[in-house]
Amino acid sequence: MSTTVIILAAGKGTRMRSNLPKVLQPLAGRPLLGHVINTAKKLQADHIITIYGHGGALVQNAFAHEQVQWVEQAEQLGTGHAVKVTLPVLPREGVSLILSGDVPCITEQTLQKLLDVSRETQIGLVTLTLADATGYGRIVRENGKIQAIVEHKDASEAQRQIQEINTGIYCVSNAKLHEWLPKLSNNNAQGEYYLTDIVAMAIADGLEVASVEPQLAFEVEGVNDRVQLAALEREFQNFQAKQLMQQGVHLIDPTRFDLRGNLTAGKDVRIDINVIIEGDCELGDGVEIGAGCILKNTKIAAGTKVQPYSVFDQAVVGEAAQIGPFSRLRPGAVLANEVHIGNFVEVKNSQIGLGSKANHFTYLGDAEVGAGSNIGAGTITCNYDGANKFKTIIGDQVFIGSNSSLVAPVTIANGATVGAGSTITRDVAEQCLAVERSKQFTKENYQRPQKLKK
Amino acid sequence: MSTTVIILAAGKGTRMRSNLPKVLQPLAGRPLLGHVINTAKKLQADHIITIYGHGGALVQNAFAHEQVQWVEQAEQLGTGHAVKVTLPVLPREGVSLILSGDVPCITEQTLQKLLDVSRETQIGLVTLTLADATGYGRIVRENGKIQAIVEHKDASEAQRQIQEINTGIYCVSNAKLHEWLPKLSNNNAQGEYYLTDIVAMAIADGLEVASVEPQLAFEVEGVNDRVQLAALEREFQNFQAKQLMQQGVHLIDPTRFDLRGNLTAGKDVRIDINVIIEGDCELGDGVEIGAGCILKNTKIAAGTKVQPYSVFDQAVVGEAAQIGPFSRLRPGAVLANEVHIGNFVEVKNSQIGLGSKANHFTYLGDAEVGAGSNIGAGTITCNYDGANKFKTIIGDQVFIGSNSSLVAPVTIANGATVGAGSTITRDVAEQCLAVERSKQFTKENYQRPQKLKK
Amino acid sequence: MSTTVIILAAGKGTRMRSNLPKVLQPLAGRPLLGHVINTAKKLQADHIITIYGHGGALVQNAFAHEQVQWVEQAEQLGTGHAVKVTLPVLPREGVSLILSGDVPCITEQTLQKLLDVSRETQIGLVTLTLADATGYGRIVRENGKIQAIVEHKDASEAQRQIQEINTGIYCVSNAKLHEWLPKLSNNNAQGEYYLTDIVAMAIADGLEVASVEPQLAFEVEGVNDRVQLAALEREFQNFQAKQLMQQGVHLIDPTRFDLRGNLTAGKDVRIDINVIIEGDCELGDGVEIGAGCILKNTKIAAGTKVQPYSVFDQAVVGEAAQIGPFSRLRPGAVLANEVHIGNFVEVKNSQIGLGSKANHFTYLGDAEVGAGSNIGAGTITCNYDGANKFKTIIGDQVFIGSNSSLVAPVTIANGATVGAGSTITRDVAEQCLAVERSKQFTKENYQRPQKLKK
Repeated sequence: MSTTVIILAAGKGTRMRSNLPKVLQPLAGRPLLGHVINTAKKLQADHIITIYGHGGALVQNAFAHEQVQWVEQAEQLGTGHAVKVTLPVLPREGVSLILSGDVPCITEQTLQKLLDVSRETQIGLVTLTLADATGYGRIVRENGKIQAIVEHKDASEAQRQIQEINTGIYCVSNAKLHEWLPKLSNNNAQGEYYLTDIVAMAIADGLEVASVEPQLAFEVEGVNDRVQLAALEREFQNFQAKQLMQQGVHLIDPTRFDLRGNLTAGKDVRIDINVIIEGDCELGDGVEIGAGCILKNTKIAAGTKVQPYSVFDQAVVGEAAQIGPFSRLRPGAVLANEVHIGNFVEVKNSQIGLGSKANHFTYLGDAEVGAGSNIGAGTITCNYDGANKFKTIIGDQVFIGSNSSLVAPVTIANGATVGAGSTITRDVAEQCLAVERSKQFTKENYQRPQKLKK
Repeated sequence: MSTTVIILAAGKGTRMRSNLPKVLQPLAGRPLLGHVINTAKKLQADHIITIYGHGGALVQNAFAHEQVQWVEQAEQLGTGHAVKVTLPVLPREGVSLILSGDVPCITEQTLQKLLDVSRETQIGLVTLTLADATGYGRIVRENGKIQAIVEHKDASEAQRQIQEINTGIYCVSNAKLHEWLPKLSNNNAQGEYYLTDIVAMAIADGLEVASVEPQLAFEVEGVNDRVQLAALEREFQNFQAKQLMQQGVHLIDPTRFDLRGNLTAGKDVRIDINVIIEGDCELGDGVEIGAGCILKNTKIAAGTKVQPYSVFDQAVVGEAAQIGPFSRLRPGAVLANEVHIGNFVEVKNSQIGLGSKANHFTYLGDAEVGAGSNIGAGTITCNYDGANKFKTIIGDQVFIGSNSSLVAPVTIANGATVGAGSTITRDVAEQCLAVERSKQFTKENYQRPQKLKK
Repeated sequence: MSTTVIILAAGKGTRMRSNLPKVLQPLAGRPLLGHVINTAKKLQADHIITIYGHGGALVQNAFAHEQVQWVEQAEQLGTGHAVKVTLPVLPREGVSLILSGDVPCITEQTLQKLLDVSRETQIGLVTLTLADATGYGRIVRENGKIQAIVEHKDASEAQRQIQEINTGIYCVSNAKLHEWLPKLSNNNAQGEYYLTDIVAMAIADGLEVASVEPQLAFEVEGVNDRVQLAALEREFQNFQAKQLMQQGVHLIDPTRFDLRGNLTAGKDVRIDINVIIEGDCELGDGVEIGAGCILKNTKIAAGTKVQPYSVFDQAVVGEAAQIGPFSRLRPGAVLANEVHIGNFVEVKNSQIGLGSKANHFTYLGDAEVGAGSNIGAGTITCNYDGANKFKTIIGDQVFIGSNSSLVAPVTIANGATVGAGSTITRDVAEQCLAVERSKQFTKENYQRPQKLKK
């Protein structure tokens, strides 16, 4: 049986006070709608139909790389109307999960359960039991079976005691959608077409309405303003943090950990406070990440320790390396095992060989460094002449004296030494010492400048 | 009708265990008393009278710039005594709001409401309803009208069930204060003059006592020790964060955001975790502030992205600039549009022109940089000769090679180029290349130093 | 009466998903077992007996420096069995406190109270009253006296209403342990020897069972997985933070403060958000620590301000110094009073004299700097020749120009000046100016490199 996921994503989200359509607001670094599309993909949905409205071009562009069918809801005439506009492209067979682009945390587990329970009933929905259900549509049951969904304002005093509510997430057979949706009416106070009405139609048809509850309440929370967005972000982050801890990651403070993407972690990984992980990151066994580090699309092998306030983007770090604090690895930084990168060091688009060290104030850009080399404090690869970028090649067992400038393109061959403070513009051959330096000049009894009178 | 604000600020605050008088302890970067004075000013109070005692000189100095009348309470004989000492300077007309210097979060909205409800009654007070009112003075009402304030220890069992309490914030007609305060007695267990007694006098006089409740409980919370101070700081920060989110600011984690002053933010401003805003800051539309940034008295125009761990003080940044990470803008840093400031770069008292770049390890102090110039990694403006500071002038389209030292006063004119590693002591004319460098010397088969035996 | 502390530390902690034995998992920077041993030492226990099992060698190595007697429990046959294996080394006189290596936060105050109440009864235990006691062994009392401990599964409906539970922390006379433990039976569903059974034996012997409750519930919380470990870490941190605030430390946000060791703080110490204190640190009166600083085994004297994002390890800082932001003090950094260390400065194994300054981009390694000297931006002490490290001696009132390289061993004597951009390889005598620099060369109408076509 084929599965379609229909996502309602036409709302403007005025209360966000943003130029961005609501479903593009990010949660954990990914647009709200992206979370829902991602969940649809995890369910291996055969079709994903997204209903857009406000900011349609922006929304479609943001997901241009996704296999999504876009249907426009030109006017906002209610949730029922929204789903109805998909009918021309909705398959007549199989079932549809109807989700909201602003309810981003629904899990594939809950949806799979919903698919399972709805298999025999043609319709099912996700409900939630709340301590205080005021304001929500209540699930009225008799002998356990759903009899109706009653909106809060229409509910009797007895019905208002009901704690089980409708979350607006449905699973319906496509055949039934094609049958029911054209019959929806907007004959109500708001003049809108309500999707909820299909439940009444199902019951009127004598069908049973299946239901499931999510494992965690935040799965069905919607986002309407920045306060809700921030609250849901924290719930999602806590959920992710708990999963990682259960897998064995040692988070020093799960309330100060942000994962905006995916983290694959080995055994005994320790992550200190205020670390941010973005994109896809991998940390090997025993990796330690110091406080305040920010890692994006980075891979770090086993046993490496990263000291606090290091910022990595698209870096690859070998085993047993020592990095930071205050280090910056930019895209293309590839560090072999046992490399040492110290404080205030920047590496960009450079390979650094086994055990080489750059411990202080160094910029390595467009460089290749061999094994066992030592790059002195203050060394700069002058990779840019104002128009073009060039490579600096440093061999094995090279020693670069402090405060050196290596003007690329330039090669410092194996075993070579560069004297401190040198500006190296010509290649240095193996085992050679290269120095660029004048004679040290001394002036005795030097009178230092005096404070000027103003 | 003229409004006087009387602020009780004479307490020592022994439980703070501090050399600072309690009302000078900072909350969100401003002394407790400063919050109250600020609120008085928002209410456009005609007179602000502050009663000081412990640490009087310190307190007065801290607010020397404010239009505040200071009255000394030499002995601490109770709240009634405190207000009584203001009588010689208290106008005979109009009304007074009586506030506490250690209840910093009372809002002008609540006080305006108090003024409004007290207009016809001559006396009004702020009350609060608590789930557990144990220990507080209860508001005894009959048919909704306030009959008495009963201290917890004097309350009957029935009165102890009352959840509405006195917060100690009053609005009283000055005529009545002049009438009632001289009649206060210290004939009680503590031998103190209680301000509360004026409520009984008002009721005895047949007056109705008006009352309002604050919108949020934290408005009337007092601070007696560091634990309470820290708790109130968090409540205040959460309150501010919520206001900003409602205005449309995207705070990634409102519990990790500190505003110690005022923030004016455009649309779609995004602020990552652990950012601190101090003083008066402005952020234009679409500005993004990375994790851990600290901005003080800084103005950033639309579209600029600030990467993590950047620290700005009295800086002005143009549109669409890219700054950080690990950047430091010090007072007088003025960056035009599209400027790029990279990692480990410090800018002090310098103007940088349109689109110019200093991407790595650079110190620009007392400099003027034109448009379209590129300052290489490791460049330092040597602005200080040990006694005086001098300017470095860099024109448009200048290229400064890496690791250069520009010894001020010096001018590098438009289109000029400085070779890497140069120490520039003389002006460089337009379109010229300036290099300070020796010949690169090579020694073959160089024997590098060996590890010394110890 | 001699006191023995018996610590159960044989569990593997499978749910931690770690290669480390559970009792070696760190809480606030110290292994769980370390907390318990530390508490035993504060109680001046005469003997500390630790029962090890899984990962025994690792556990013993971690505490090789402690006066601990190790007893192996080769098979895990229950808590009663664990204590039984200590009998061969357990004194026959005095009392034993029986603690768990994975219940790290028990305080000496609670244990001292337990010792006190157990003095006359021969047996006592720590109990806890919970709102929801489901799952725990209940304390059954009659007329206030303990009658039995009933496991949840064996409890009657009435007993399940009991909120007082057994925490597994006991104080027992050693004579009784020698009498009772050999009589324990494993004749139960799990086939384990339960320590709880000694309570029944005591009651059967007609003894009264004393009890105390801890002041705070987290004292008796155990750790079984990473989620519990993180939760307990936060409770412990909050407890520590509250203690510091009560002593007068101003923590801007106690939920963002981590103390992993001991902090001795003077009056009016202010600590901003996200500071981490490790090891043993001392902060003098009025010291201010900026946001995100990390201090380890560091001592800072009165009046010093440390700006944000400074990382110190084994540093000593004098009075009224100004440090940071983005500074790094490594082991052996000793700063006199009024020293200024600015942004992106690293100091290692160096003494810096009264009022000397290194304000930007400087590496001082293995250096001695006198008083009143100014180290220009970008200065680097070239302390390493690739094989050995050497000292740089800088006298009083020295001025080192920016971007200088000081090639150690080298001495810059009192009052000397080094010109900007110099590489200094020979000693500079008093009052001399030393410069290493070539002539500035100019090429007019220089054609800068053009963008290469690709």
